[in-house]
Amino acid sequence: MTRGRFIVFEGIDGCGKSTQARRWAAELDGRFVFEPGDTELGAQLRTWLLDAHFAMGPRVESLLMLADRSHHVTTVIEPTLDQGVDVIADRFFASTLAYQGYGRGVDLAELRAATSLAIGSCRPDLTFLLDVDVSVARQRGASRQDDRFESVPGDFLERVRDGYREMAASDSDHWAVVDGTLSEEDVASRIREVLAERR
Amino acid sequence: MTRGRFIVFEGIDGCGKSTQARRWAAELDGRFVFEPGDTELGAQLRTWLLDAHFAMGPRVESLLMLADRSHHVTTVIEPTLDQGVDVIADRFFASTLAYQGYGRGVDLAELRAATSLAIGSCRPDLTFLLDVDVSVARQRGASRQDDRFESVPGDFLERVRDGYREMAASDSDHWAVVDGTLSEEDVASRIREVLAERR
Repeated sequence: MTRGRFIVFEGIDGCGKSTQARRWAAELDGRFVFEPGDTELGAQLRTWLLDAHFAMGPRVESLLMLADRSHHVTTVIEPTLDQGVDVIADRFFASTLAYQGYGRGVDLAELRAATSLAIGSCRPDLTFLLDVDVSVARQRGASRQDDRFESVPGDFLERVRDGYREMAASDSDHWAVVDGTLSEEDVASRIREVLAERR
Repeated sequence: MTRGRFIVFEGIDGCGKSTQARRWAAELDGRFVFEPGDTELGAQLRTWLLDAHFAMGPRVESLLMLADRSHHVTTVIEPTLDQGVDVIADRFFASTLAYQGYGRGVDLAELRAATSLAIGSCRPDLTFLLDVDVSVARQRGASRQDDRFESVPGDFLERVRDGYREMAASDSDHWAVVDGTLSEEDVASRIREVLAERR
């Protein structure tokens, strides 16, 4: 049986990645997954990560994200791909490099090594970066009353965005950058083209 | 202010390390700490790690152990050392290398890199390995009705013990091996000698 394709959507909140990931899971008859929190263990970790109660540092945050991801890979992503079903993910390892590495300053080489520990050889076939200005993402967040933006400084999100762009530029075989400020339909058209080119 | 010393006790369950760690924390007027589970976050992680409910793989287990350790270093160990107080630990990073690496087969180089992410430069000044045969550890466990041994295969514990011995042999500046089959008093005497030699 042909192994499924593993396609990831990345970008800062408000870039439109969740919408596109769900859309393409339907179009490709694949399985939609997300991180963090897509397993029973992960759901518990997610409540911690989004809860400031423990006031955890960026290294702890990274390691919990990676634990969640490792469990997700073993219990959901790999078995689905092995069944010949495409997996369409809303965030994967690049999120940890972008947010905890580029954003919060955790050493990138150490993060990459720990990522290898977490996911082994389970790497995306293709990652779409839906790239938007931080100001655009903020406007979208405000219009849908998404309060995640209120406590996040703009320069942090700028570093995260720059990190994504740097990762995409340095590995163009596995990344495609799409202008996330386009309409949902135009973004989908561009994604369709890329998927056709790279099948 | 002189920074406190960071002294760790390692070995398989039943080797006597918890007894000696508590004893030396009292003798040195230091702080006794343990892993996993010595913080609020860690206590929650410990219940998961000791609970088979999620049936987590060795990579996930390693990452959760490292997340617990990272939080412990930042919130307890480093602040205590900075106050000039000795920290005496029942297990630290060598446990993850021994159990998940040597024991469960997780890649040691990846584990070491992830350990650097977790603990940064917070390394023990001295680690005591209380070395005992697996059969001795089992007898001690049986006599105190410690049920952790019942489900653990002997060859796993042999690999863990061999891993500890290999780590100690390869970094004798930071490790001391003590025969854990001696009486509690004789083990303590040997530890006293080593501490005097290496102050």
